Amino acid sequence: MTSSPASDTASAAQAPSAAEEALAGAVDDASLARSIARSREIEADMPLNPGRYRMLTGVRPTGNMHLGHYFGTMRSWAPIQDMGIDTWILVADYQVITDRDGVGPIRERVLSLTADALSVGVDPERSTIFAHSAVPAANQLMLPFLSLVTESELHRNPTVKAELEATAGRAMSGLLLTYPVHQAADILFCQANLVPVGKDQLPHLEQARLIAQRFDKRYGRAEKSRPVFRRPEALLGEAPLLLGLDGEKMSKSRGNTIELRMSADETAKALRKAKTDSDRVITYDPAGRPEVSNLLMLASLCGAGAPEEIAERIGDGGAGALKRLTTEAVNEYFAPIRARRQELVADEDHLLAVLASGNARANEVADETLRAVRAAMRMDY
Amino acid sequence: MTSSPASDTASAAQAPSAAEEALAGAVDDASLARSIARSREIEADMPLNPGRYRMLTGVRPTGNMHLGHYFGTMRSWAPIQDMGIDTWILVADYQVITDRDGVGPIRERVLSLTADALSVGVDPERSTIFAHSAVPAANQLMLPFLSLVTESELHRNPTVKAELEATAGRAMSGLLLTYPVHQAADILFCQANLVPVGKDQLPHLEQARLIAQRFDKRYGRAEKSRPVFRRPEALLGEAPLLLGLDGEKMSKSRGNTIELRMSADETAKALRKAKTDSDRVITYDPAGRPEVSNLLMLASLCGAGAPEEIAERIGDGGAGALKRLTTEAVNEYFAPIRARRQELVADEDHLLAVLASGNARANEVADETLRAVRAAMRMDY
Repeated sequence: MTSSPASDTASAAQAPSAAEEALAGAVDDASLARSIARSREIEADMPLNPGRYRMLTGVRPTGNMHLGHYFGTMRSWAPIQDMGIDTWILVADYQVITDRDGVGPIRERVLSLTADALSVGVDPERSTIFAHSAVPAANQLMLPFLSLVTESELHRNPTVKAELEATAGRAMSGLLLTYPVHQAADILFCQANLVPVGKDQLPHLEQARLIAQRFDKRYGRAEKSRPVFRRPEALLGEAPLLLGLDGEKMSKSRGNTIELRMSADETAKALRKAKTDSDRVITYDPAGRPEVSNLLMLASLCGAGAPEEIAERIGDGGAGALKRLTTEAVNEYFAPIRARRQELVADEDHLLAVLASGNARANEVADETLRAVRAAMRMDY
Repeated sequence: MTSSPASDTASAAQAPSAAEEALAGAVDDASLARSIARSREIEADMPLNPGRYRMLTGVRPTGNMHLGHYFGTMRSWAPIQDMGIDTWILVADYQVITDRDGVGPIRERVLSLTADALSVGVDPERSTIFAHSAVPAANQLMLPFLSLVTESELHRNPTVKAELEATAGRAMSGLLLTYPVHQAADILFCQANLVPVGKDQLPHLEQARLIAQRFDKRYGRAEKSRPVFRRPEALLGEAPLLLGLDGEKMSKSRGNTIELRMSADETAKALRKAKTDSDRVITYDPAGRPEVSNLLMLASLCGAGAPEEIAERIGDGGAGALKRLTTEAVNEYFAPIRARRQELVADEDHLLAVLASGNARANEVADETLRAVRAAMRMDY
């Protein structure tokens, strides 16, 4: 969901249930094939039966959103919403402190992210943009959920492992260790049944399903006819792999990104510095010429045509022509989004009002879920 | 606070602060002496300045309250309240699932515990009786607090160690592992500055103080002039060690207790089965004759005089006379409490109303604390 991608296998408790086996094999080829097939089924059904779905997606406000985020996930938000699917966007502010000591300029980043979401077409009248820290009843789910997982399961979670490796030398915080559990709380509290993920994130969804299933088995139900929690399913996107401008993995911390909030001039300046190669004839060859091909892909994503076709158009115009074309495509594509964003960031009160209404809606649903949880656990007093 | 007693040392992080050193040495002799001295100071100040204090005590609703609970902690509740000290009684329902799979008859036990508290003189107009599961904003504190402790600190906590040993063979649940953190949330959310504990529980209080101190250092304050959390201090009681009726450690699960809710006849029956010895001359000798001395102590606590004096009175009357005298003392002492309790349990609506108003008060204070936490963390949106 919101985590950094990580690939590994996760195994589970002694007597594996179906969900436990699914978790253990979440990234097996056969299991992945099943997940992809199921995701295609859902995708086909979404426009036909939008009322069946609630989609939840999360973003960690650790920096400004860039084109990798946009083409990876954000560009799908408005189309999903516009199909009539109830769309929830979680600003995962507590996740910022899983692996670092301070919150940073958290308020600015949360407001910036809210502006990003609105600028790409999320409509706060129909969709819910909310902050993790603003929904106490959702966070309370941590306690019963923690009773449903063992310490060794937490350790085997691929994200916990990967994040621990990424912060080498740092002691594991309790918050990082319990990461799979708060992520499960985020997904399950709002009864989302559709979660866009990359395939490396499938184990998180399996963990959430496993917790929901164990809750049902151990603590029971508020209403006999249905479990307290809805079963979340993966929407496996086929996000294009965009590299950073230096040809390395795109990352906020490497400074090799084009940010959504940049101006046309800043974009041109960043692209002028992009790494290419010395062959003046431009060709689309992702394996042999990753940097050049990456710019072609970016231009293509911004509507300049197929990457091969753009390459042919440029011919022996060299890297300069490629960068000019890419700059133009990017700036043209993002002009309306950036213009909206400019207006939005100028009106902090509006952004706060959007968050306040999203938080209120999230609290309503969380309170309802917590009531069912307490009733199932017979803690209704 | 609410946990089973456990004795061990807890060590802390790399660069120990004062609080970290206090935690490490919480059960050292010198440190214990300081804690006792400080507790005596507070005890002397309590009747003089009751407005300075908020007392929090917690009970885990895993069974019915017995005379060990009464003489260990409950009998001090009303006197503290009647001094004018703001008295908070936490029904720690989520703690029931730290080390067992089901909740058991939790609703009945929580209501029974509420009746117990009222029957020993807690006045719901002045004091706050509330359930852990009913205060979402307090539970949310788990998330920021988990960021302030490391996994190895959690492991070193004496209660986590002791509870793990007590449930040998059972996998450590995430909820048991994070026990010190939810206990800190319980204490800190309500700004209690007075927590009655046994000396073995001092490390819990140190852990809560350490979390409060780290929060202040890392995340700052809502108001410059004071930290978000008040510093909780130990009220070290000198609870008499009552044994079970079989001469072993008194415990709900061993069935060797006299419960508050028992009738006079049930009490007589239980005491008739109490283990004694064959020496007809009754003497007070806790080391040499633990079972006989335990009954003498119980009779003494119930107002029959000093244990030695009671022994002399019985002389060579034997165990029969000792049991009769003890039965009479216990039944006389608890008669008014039990009569009140009978009336109280007959009126579930009243018990629910008491809890509802306690929960409401706890939520008010928790919401206020969470507002300060979010403001300090700059998550105010």
